[in-house]
Amino acid sequence: MTAMSPYERLRARFARLAALEEASAILHWDTSVMMPRASAPARGEQMAALAAVAHGTLTDAAAADELAAAEAASARLGEADRANLALMRRKHRRATALPPVLVEAMARACSACEAAWREARRSSDFPAVAPLLAEVVGLVREQAAALSAATGLAPYDALMDGFQPGLSDARVAAVFGPLETMLAGMLPEVLARQAAMPSPIPLTGPFPVAAQRALCRSLAERAGLDFAAARLDESTHPFCGGTPTDIRITTRYDESDPTQAILGVLHECGHALYEAHLPKPYARSPLGEAAGMAAHESQSLIIEMQASRSDAFLSWLGPRMAEAFAKDSGGDPAPYAPENLARLWRRVAPGFIRVEADEVTYPAHVILRWRLERALVSGDLAVADLPGAWNEGIKTLLGLDVPDDRRGCLQDIHWYDGAFGYFPSYTLGAMGAAQLFQAAVAERPEIVPALAEGSFAPLVSWLAERVHAHGARHGFDALLEAATGRALDPAAFERHLRARYLGA
Amino acid sequence: MTAMSPYERLRARFARLAALEEASAILHWDTSVMMPRASAPARGEQMAALAAVAHGTLTDAAAADELAAAEAASARLGEADRANLALMRRKHRRATALPPVLVEAMARACSACEAAWREARRSSDFPAVAPLLAEVVGLVREQAAALSAATGLAPYDALMDGFQPGLSDARVAAVFGPLETMLAGMLPEVLARQAAMPSPIPLTGPFPVAAQRALCRSLAERAGLDFAAARLDESTHPFCGGTPTDIRITTRYDESDPTQAILGVLHECGHALYEAHLPKPYARSPLGEAAGMAAHESQSLIIEMQASRSDAFLSWLGPRMAEAFAKDSGGDPAPYAPENLARLWRRVAPGFIRVEADEVTYPAHVILRWRLERALVSGDLAVADLPGAWNEGIKTLLGLDVPDDRRGCLQDIHWYDGAFGYFPSYTLGAMGAAQLFQAAVAERPEIVPALAEGSFAPLVSWLAERVHAHGARHGFDALLEAATGRALDPAAFERHLRARYLGA
Repeated sequence: MTAMSPYERLRARFARLAALEEASAILHWDTSVMMPRASAPARGEQMAALAAVAHGTLTDAAAADELAAAEAASARLGEADRANLALMRRKHRRATALPPVLVEAMARACSACEAAWREARRSSDFPAVAPLLAEVVGLVREQAAALSAATGLAPYDALMDGFQPGLSDARVAAVFGPLETMLAGMLPEVLARQAAMPSPIPLTGPFPVAAQRALCRSLAERAGLDFAAARLDESTHPFCGGTPTDIRITTRYDESDPTQAILGVLHECGHALYEAHLPKPYARSPLGEAAGMAAHESQSLIIEMQASRSDAFLSWLGPRMAEAFAKDSGGDPAPYAPENLARLWRRVAPGFIRVEADEVTYPAHVILRWRLERALVSGDLAVADLPGAWNEGIKTLLGLDVPDDRRGCLQDIHWYDGAFGYFPSYTLGAMGAAQLFQAAVAERPEIVPALAEGSFAPLVSWLAERVHAHGARHGFDALLEAATGRALDPAAFERHLRARYLGA
Repeated sequence: MTAMSPYERLRARFARLAALEEASAILHWDTSVMMPRASAPARGEQMAALAAVAHGTLTDAAAADELAAAEAASARLGEADRANLALMRRKHRRATALPPVLVEAMARACSACEAAWREARRSSDFPAVAPLLAEVVGLVREQAAALSAATGLAPYDALMDGFQPGLSDARVAAVFGPLETMLAGMLPEVLARQAAMPSPIPLTGPFPVAAQRALCRSLAERAGLDFAAARLDESTHPFCGGTPTDIRITTRYDESDPTQAILGVLHECGHALYEAHLPKPYARSPLGEAAGMAAHESQSLIIEMQASRSDAFLSWLGPRMAEAFAKDSGGDPAPYAPENLARLWRRVAPGFIRVEADEVTYPAHVILRWRLERALVSGDLAVADLPGAWNEGIKTLLGLDVPDDRRGCLQDIHWYDGAFGYFPSYTLGAMGAAQLFQAAVAERPEIVPALAEGSFAPLVSWLAERVHAHGARHGFDALLEAATGRALDPAAFERHLRARYLGA
């Protein structure tokens, strides 16, 4: 047996770490989809134990030695391996910043809080989960302080950097400030134009779950999901989980409306394809991971928002929906006419629920959460004051009075699961998706005609090459620059909204 | 924070180990029930990584120090904690006997071999899996040698001891020798008596899967399975997995015959109840585990063989089966008459498949496997010669010519998954089940009348108290002695068979 070089030993170490993280990912899916409720405390222990041993794998004394030795010899490595090594250092720096006792406490607190949140949301009972959320926020603040000390970033930046490397509050503020102004000006125009157009014919069910499931499965296959290496199941909060060779997307079926299932599955497919196409030679190495959460969201939204809600794709999908559903819903094909689907699925209406929001008002939901989570992390906002601050923000941004916390600060899982610094990714992803789609269509004129035939293949092949294949090599701006020639450019998103919602 | 005692630190260490093992158990279930096939290699990596970190948790340098310190101070512990500590020492001794590289190689080789076995069994292609099995056997022999050196047991005994502590080849030989003779004498008598009785009316389907699933679920509930802490799913090879608060039993449904599903689910429920009733104060500690595999099998078989195939229970079950199935299978209730079910489900017929064998011929299947696995472990039998030796054994023991390896040495998962020394547990469990049932019924006369009303509660309550609550405190013989006043007594099994099959 030839002795392994320090870099090879690091690769083996990171492969073990990744395998443990894969195990956690499958258990996380299981928790949401399969686990009997009584086992929530035990699952918390399991996740905590996995987090602890993963942390130990990354941070034991030998890891630091291996890193130093590999860096000293890095001149012998190729460019990709040097990038991989730099990403290993980054992970090590972030992980060693956190004491194991904090890592384990976070895992346990988040597991308990998430379980309580499921009940609290059902019964719209924020006080029932508030003490658990306060514990999570307290631990998140400790985490932010420790990461800040290790990285030199501000505390909230250090959290964001964990979700989307390189992102900063200043960059987000520079994008979100003008965006808020632009959208506030555009919204009345959009609503006025919409009011002057025919009202959409509602989809009237019932839409049997079995028919929805079959259609969603076939759409996922069209999007490129390979069911020999993936599953589609059901959960309260849809997500894309699992591992690159065992991708697990979930959705929920509503018998009165198939919209959420259809567009939700296409959304999760965007995430899934990114994972499936990550560079295989760097599987279980940091370079073989996705570039971050804003990058990930750009991939789900390019499939859901840019491609699936395009005139071209709706012209193909409408007749398929009529075929799948018309017989159970009165036999009238009119609701499935592409122009009607376009009116339904591009309907702009300020509302309470982020995941149901249209493209024009969605950023307001994110901007609110971004402001509130910064304040929670800085300590400027107490958990007890969250409902009030939330409701006030929705009033200011969208002019609505939040009727209960279920439709307010209890609606999203993120904070209850310890994710602070994540929300900006959604809107940055939406903006990136518009920019990527415009670049892709300009380069490959066959993309739109293919969508009109129900094929995502040309678009997905462009994404695989321009985005997915880079793995984690670039930050969000650099990834967009590599793919489109420009860092994130808000003009692309505005162009998209003006074209779709103002016919401009 | 008060400083933890060495024993408390050990409890925390073993709790982490147990949580990692629980994670493995859920992933093992997932592999059989949920995982897309393309992910088998990745799952192998995940299981290997979990095995490695679990092994490290048990064997790092601090563990030995904690054990020595706790043993030095053990006079301060109560009797149960001293028993727990002795079991910790036992686990540590076995784990430190194995080099980590061997543990990881075993996990990886077994995962690959098991996946190949699934294909090889389908196509009855032993040569396709033989090289992988040879690799597994080679690693098992290394494992046996290392365990033998650490424990002073003979190599095959050291393997058996891992499944059923305290069991030895000599004890098995002393039981199986006379058993083989007794059964060889009894079988012709049983067959002659059976031939003189009316033939059973076959169950003629179809038996829709949905109806079978509903009946099996309700039977599991009657047996005492709590679906707030358990699941019932489907897999090729039925098993009971998961964890004490998240028990996962599986079955398979055959539309032409509900027998296997019904009795299989009741069998797995016996395992499940054992896990569910283990002593909670020692959860995630060695004392809170089951006593071993023979003990476990005695619990599945007391539910399946002793209780569920009793006249009393069949008198209740027959009408429920008629209700569930008669309308789909021609409307004739005659096949569901309790005396017909008894003739069907106690039919004795030498056959090829262990899991389909009756109580009278089942031990022959086990005795064959016991002889072959000893020979594989000792090196007296080469993997390439396994099919020939198998077929010869079946000819000698049951007078049958094995037509293909699918019905021969490919039928069971155990060896392909690295389990050598496990098979004797099945027949020891069957014998223990007879002994426990006779003792339970003698002490609690309400057990049989309750079965006649479809209730397992009095039997299960006796088992919970006399068997389950002891956890891992006793070896198999000692457990039977604690519960019934006698170590394993083959006379009870003979009495059971004579009563049921010879009316004696």
